[in-house]
Amino acid sequence: MTDLPVIRLRPKSKPQAIRHGFPWVFEDEAVLDRRTKALAAGSFAILEDAERKAMAVVTVNPASKIVARVMDSDPEAVIGGGWLQARLLRALKMRERLYDAPFYRLVHAESDGLPGLIVDRFGDVAVMQPNAAWADGMASEIADALVAVTGVTTVILNGQGRARSLEGLAERMEVLRGEAPSGPIEVAMNGAIYLADVMGGQKTGIFYDQRPNHAFAQRLVDGGEVLDVFSHVGGFGLAMLAAGAERTTCIDGSAPALELVRGGAKAMGATDRVEVLQSDAFKALEAMAAEGRRFDVVVCDPPAFAPSKQALEAGLRAYERVAKLAAPLVKPGGYLALCSCSHAADLTAFRNASARGIGRGGRRSVLIHSGQAGPDHPTLPQLAETGYLKALFFRLD
Amino acid sequence: MTDLPVIRLRPKSKPQAIRHGFPWVFEDEAVLDRRTKALAAGSFAILEDAERKAMAVVTVNPASKIVARVMDSDPEAVIGGGWLQARLLRALKMRERLYDAPFYRLVHAESDGLPGLIVDRFGDVAVMQPNAAWADGMASEIADALVAVTGVTTVILNGQGRARSLEGLAERMEVLRGEAPSGPIEVAMNGAIYLADVMGGQKTGIFYDQRPNHAFAQRLVDGGEVLDVFSHVGGFGLAMLAAGAERTTCIDGSAPALELVRGGAKAMGATDRVEVLQSDAFKALEAMAAEGRRFDVVVCDPPAFAPSKQALEAGLRAYERVAKLAAPLVKPGGYLALCSCSHAADLTAFRNASARGIGRGGRRSVLIHSGQAGPDHPTLPQLAETGYLKALFFRLD
Repeated sequence: MTDLPVIRLRPKSKPQAIRHGFPWVFEDEAVLDRRTKALAAGSFAILEDAERKAMAVVTVNPASKIVARVMDSDPEAVIGGGWLQARLLRALKMRERLYDAPFYRLVHAESDGLPGLIVDRFGDVAVMQPNAAWADGMASEIADALVAVTGVTTVILNGQGRARSLEGLAERMEVLRGEAPSGPIEVAMNGAIYLADVMGGQKTGIFYDQRPNHAFAQRLVDGGEVLDVFSHVGGFGLAMLAAGAERTTCIDGSAPALELVRGGAKAMGATDRVEVLQSDAFKALEAMAAEGRRFDVVVCDPPAFAPSKQALEAGLRAYERVAKLAAPLVKPGGYLALCSCSHAADLTAFRNASARGIGRGGRRSVLIHSGQAGPDHPTLPQLAETGYLKALFFRLD
Repeated sequence: MTDLPVIRLRPKSKPQAIRHGFPWVFEDEAVLDRRTKALAAGSFAILEDAERKAMAVVTVNPASKIVARVMDSDPEAVIGGGWLQARLLRALKMRERLYDAPFYRLVHAESDGLPGLIVDRFGDVAVMQPNAAWADGMASEIADALVAVTGVTTVILNGQGRARSLEGLAERMEVLRGEAPSGPIEVAMNGAIYLADVMGGQKTGIFYDQRPNHAFAQRLVDGGEVLDVFSHVGGFGLAMLAAGAERTTCIDGSAPALELVRGGAKAMGATDRVEVLQSDAFKALEAMAAEGRRFDVVVCDPPAFAPSKQALEAGLRAYERVAKLAAPLVKPGGYLALCSCSHAADLTAFRNASARGIGRGGRRSVLIHSGQAGPDHPTLPQLAETGYLKALFFRLD
């Protein structure tokens, strides 16, 4: 790939981090001359250190704060079909070791050596989110590589969401290979059955990242009544149902999501044990407390209240409020799980907000487990903040 | 208990933390007059705020930096047999929800409302560590309550270790109820069989805290050869054996511990698949690297290298060295698990030291899981540092 343009680190920037696996070059670390600025977003280049030694093949986006992302630490690498297949095979081998069935996040962006690319697998269907310009441009090659490596028959491109707009990419929704599924796909996890609407749902249709936390919630169930607030397609609620809860109540603001909860319950043959409630979660929690409703296990898995550093304080107040409203709904000796998928709120900040809220809700607690995203969502040690998902399990007196 | 002496908070200390569940009063927060200083270590007292309002029953140790620990937030509580039974019953109910068999940490000190008291259960045998003066003094009442609540027939007091000397307690080793077991106790966990030497082993004989991390390591096994460094009784090594490893190698400096590894392997009918090596771990890792030995999974679970803040820097260097020496022993695409049970080294510091060591060992890595102590080791949200155990699972290129 010696015909690639060059992007060079500034004399004072430190190449060691890149050499040790840090995958990003920020705008103040690179020489941004007119030639570099003219590179098309998503194009490939050779990253050189200040002494002009080639360090890596990178993908460039002169308009982004991250002007370059490492594709391969070998500057001779050729980013094409063979290269994509090698990366996908490495990702696949790891998931096949971890999971019995082909339902998982197959590609988790930088951590799988494919910057900005997300691929979730639903059996024979792969749903990709190319959230970086290079991946959007090479979507067809990626689809071919997915088919070749995994044997999937359908590849869907779901090009929606905030990450794409940050990269300057327009919305796309396409079936790249095979046929669009005629309806939601059944996904079996932890003994429950979920319906994933891969063509119209949030993100890729289901949140695989919570799988180990669903499993932990199942251990807390011993019959009884459970509540899943911000339920989406019923991740926690249906898992607890599968673990023997007598009755699950799922609250969400989205009617289509609750329809999928109902569909999952039907597939599990447990329609009569599931109640769905379309409502603002805060209002629903207040109303239930006023009615004196009590549950054996309550789970709250809200959307990211602190999606950015600017939103951190307001976000932590919202998390505290969820905890305060949910705590009174837990029976004495019962369990409360509180989740956050906010990058900006770290574990300590979220734990403190949660504990404060539980205290203000009039309850004492111990923390029995701090869960995180499952191992199909690996992180680069150098990007610890990508450990965004927190699931705290409290036992309440 | 109105005949109890009083210990009072100083005017400027903040009683809110105690009211919200913080369990400790530090020496600079309490009025330490001659009368208070004369209280016997382990005696009970009423904690009052600066306005002389009773806040809690506490146990006092005027010689400790933590001069008082909350026994009960109800100042009317009577700390006796009935009270002990209630606390034990609460702890037992939580464990019975979580575990199928009666092998677990039953009491985890402050988090179970019993300051400084540790109880591990091995079926009909309970091993208690009274690491606070009150519990040492009430050991007989605690033994009675354990028998009454759990039905155990044997209660052993294991009074060894650093925590006791900090509290000014001498070493004790006694059989309080029933008969001492005639030999090591078989403990089944995650499909493996371990031997716990409850009369002579480290701590209470086995480390229950690593159970979920043993289970995670099992998911990484697909036949092949695995290595357990600092193996103790074989926690990781035998778990991976149970998960189908063709061969397990366990390294430890303790001959008695390795004898228990052999005993566990024998009980599992897998003697021929287990190799034990008594050696300094650092030397063994260097020797194996020199021989070109490679394993599919390597786990290093050393003793606390950073037991105190003073030892933090040296401890982190030791953790980095373990990572650096272990990384070359992992096959390409294999897994490396690195553990720390050091309070002083937090997750971020330990992760950074580990990642640095892996890098210096010449390998690239992604972090797929950050494990912690199991839910039979709950933490008070107000004492987040009690989350001492870290188990980081890396996939190496």
